[in-house]
Amino acid sequence: MKHYIGATNPMHAQFDARASYQARHFKWDYDTTGVATVTLNRPERKNPLTFDSYAELRDLFNGLRYATDVKVVVLTGEGGNFSSGGDVHDIIGPLTKMSMPELLEFTRMTGDLVKAMRNCPQPVIGAIDGTCAGAGAMMALACDLRYGSETTRTAFLFTRVGLAGADMGACALLPRVIGQGRASELLFTGRAMTAQEGLAWGFFNALHDGGELLVVAQSIAAELAAGPTFGHAMTKTMLQQEWAMTIEQAIEAEAQAQAICMQTHDFRRAYEAFAARQKPVFGGD
Amino acid sequence: MKHYIGATNPMHAQFDARASYQARHFKWDYDTTGVATVTLNRPERKNPLTFDSYAELRDLFNGLRYATDVKVVVLTGEGGNFSSGGDVHDIIGPLTKMSMPELLEFTRMTGDLVKAMRNCPQPVIGAIDGTCAGAGAMMALACDLRYGSETTRTAFLFTRVGLAGADMGACALLPRVIGQGRASELLFTGRAMTAQEGLAWGFFNALHDGGELLVVAQSIAAELAAGPTFGHAMTKTMLQQEWAMTIEQAIEAEAQAQAICMQTHDFRRAYEAFAARQKPVFGGD
Amino acid sequence: MKHYIGATNPMHAQFDARASYQARHFKWDYDTTGVATVTLNRPERKNPLTFDSYAELRDLFNGLRYATDVKVVVLTGEGGNFSSGGDVHDIIGPLTKMSMPELLEFTRMTGDLVKAMRNCPQPVIGAIDGTCAGAGAMMALACDLRYGSETTRTAFLFTRVGLAGADMGACALLPRVIGQGRASELLFTGRAMTAQEGLAWGFFNALHDGGELLVVAQSIAAELAAGPTFGHAMTKTMLQQEWAMTIEQAIEAEAQAQAICMQTHDFRRAYEAFAARQKPVFGGD
Repeated sequence: MKHYIGATNPMHAQFDARASYQARHFKWDYDTTGVATVTLNRPERKNPLTFDSYAELRDLFNGLRYATDVKVVVLTGEGGNFSSGGDVHDIIGPLTKMSMPELLEFTRMTGDLVKAMRNCPQPVIGAIDGTCAGAGAMMALACDLRYGSETTRTAFLFTRVGLAGADMGACALLPRVIGQGRASELLFTGRAMTAQEGLAWGFFNALHDGGELLVVAQSIAAELAAGPTFGHAMTKTMLQQEWAMTIEQAIEAEAQAQAICMQTHDFRRAYEAFAARQKPVFGGD
Repeated sequence: MKHYIGATNPMHAQFDARASYQARHFKWDYDTTGVATVTLNRPERKNPLTFDSYAELRDLFNGLRYATDVKVVVLTGEGGNFSSGGDVHDIIGPLTKMSMPELLEFTRMTGDLVKAMRNCPQPVIGAIDGTCAGAGAMMALACDLRYGSETTRTAFLFTRVGLAGADMGACALLPRVIGQGRASELLFTGRAMTAQEGLAWGFFNALHDGGELLVVAQSIAAELAAGPTFGHAMTKTMLQQEWAMTIEQAIEAEAQAQAICMQTHDFRRAYEAFAARQKPVFGGD
Repeated sequence: MKHYIGATNPMHAQFDARASYQARHFKWDYDTTGVATVTLNRPERKNPLTFDSYAELRDLFNGLRYATDVKVVVLTGEGGNFSSGGDVHDIIGPLTKMSMPELLEFTRMTGDLVKAMRNCPQPVIGAIDGTCAGAGAMMALACDLRYGSETTRTAFLFTRVGLAGADMGACALLPRVIGQGRASELLFTGRAMTAQEGLAWGFFNALHDGGELLVVAQSIAAELAAGPTFGHAMTKTMLQQEWAMTIEQAIEAEAQAQAICMQTHDFRRAYEAFAARQKPVFGGD
């Protein structure tokens, strides 16, 4: 947004900064490079999700759509686990007593969290250790990049609680990441995918020691944050937009998208740095 | 269907039981856990398909849509091979003499078999040994889960008989299972995929000894049959439904689908079993 | 086209032969088996693309849609590299000075090259050694089959020049070839995919020694050229057509497509050869 400076851009009035966000149901850390880290933090129960944390996460990622100070988000869990998913006592118990409108309100809230993660302009990088189950596995799947450790176990275990594997977009997203046949097995049986399977199948981009996992994810995040973030946001938008287009439509859509990016300062900066045999310094505009 | 008991549900009147189905062009075995096994059984010619067996398979899988006693289907071949595909003498010869309307009737019949396998609510598990070729390879691809042995050879060999690789949905299904580049190679060249390639590429969920293959597949089938089969059916429906949706549409579709599943008895059964520290006993409703 | 002989088919009048095509901005070799080889040939700069070579490649592949003498295309680069992509001086410099309509004209031209490669009836086989970067990587991705060597490095490095990963269809094509998670990493970071990754992920169909790469690709091309090329063209069309169809639509589309192929001479030739225990000789009609 080159014609406005900071909050004087009226489109940014409400949401333009998340640096000082005060999270209530998880941890929020922001560093000055533009990397924000969301940490699920009920480690004594492997970081389950609750009605409150679902709603706050959804609202946070929805708000990030307009946050100009956050460039990349890292998503992780405290205490060696990512997340055990929807809490059995806090969530599943109450759900068994709800009316249909209430149930749909719940399933839409959880789905909206995935939509918000897919629709925010920031790349979301998962640092996923230990248990990654149910809605936790879906949050992992909703990330753009995923890093695990040798001990990460990822289970789309909805069938184990008597439900369908169709939860928060699993039947759409998982087949495109690991293939239709493997996704079918995980969704029908609910069994845990090992870390090595996750790596071989393309669920994880790499595995690292649990102790280094967050640092690695944050360092990749810092690299992306120092890059052409307007371009990154367009990459993310187009990965989403082209999901169900024909090839012809997708190519035209990218012709338009990339022409827009060719009018950013970052494109010129990269060229000038190259011509001067220097490393480009991107500004995100 | 909790408001009806057995055949008193008018929607089930005609088709509600397949336990005692009498197959004419293949073998049909039903065990009381709800697992039915279809065995292609002309082993002396590697279980080729004929006009008759195509039609009966299509009708069987179409009928399974309403069969409440069959929970999971295992599909296999007798004598160490899965299927050599459309019989050269019984099928290809006659096809070379047909008119266009007759040809289209044939290709629609074979396509309808794949549609019926994808649209029935039961997970279909392939136990695929030895030769798996042509229409046989397509039946394997139409399964939800696939298990092979070290000696399984899977060939989408339509090009070898002078045809396109576009047969029974191959150009849509195969790329989503093993990736567009690998699918292109198999469909253009017609070469056999080895069992190890099939495993590495996600075509097979696992490989087992030929002698144990059917037992393993039936045991996984029994596990699924003992699970929340209403949920399984919804998983299968949504994997099919979301194939060409946008991510946004898919997530909304799953919000509705899972809300439906949250009103099944199986969801409550799972919760109550968990609370009582017991293993849930699912009823499929 | 069995009712016409050669150029007497009015639909072929303009474009029916490419054997003697005189390329200006790359090399064009045609052998009498119907295999044409396109060689990018500015090896001193790793075969970059220029405005001129983009336009000529686009026009060539568009023309191939009607070329009856070219059965398969091999695409390669001279001097141990495939292509370094859009030339920094010849292309990126000028782009930084263009107006929006000019930029869109450029991005549509590059996108049209991918469309033309996907829409011509000939299978396109990439022999991809050494550097394969930017628009070069996209040309590789637009091939049907891809063969690399141990030293091939493939980088979708648009982000490195300040742009989005959304270029020439990358966000649509790459996820379907190597999976959504791996594609996201390559497009967001711009890092090079190693040859071994490319093989394990399904980007390359196989790796060969750099010295043999072109010969291997041409030999596979010759096999395809000797096959049922009308059927191959239909395979290619349907792989493209079914990209965003539902499964039901795709199966009906293939019922029609394959019924058409069943009325070709090649289908009958294959059957008759089989009955006579001979190898079929295909004619492409």
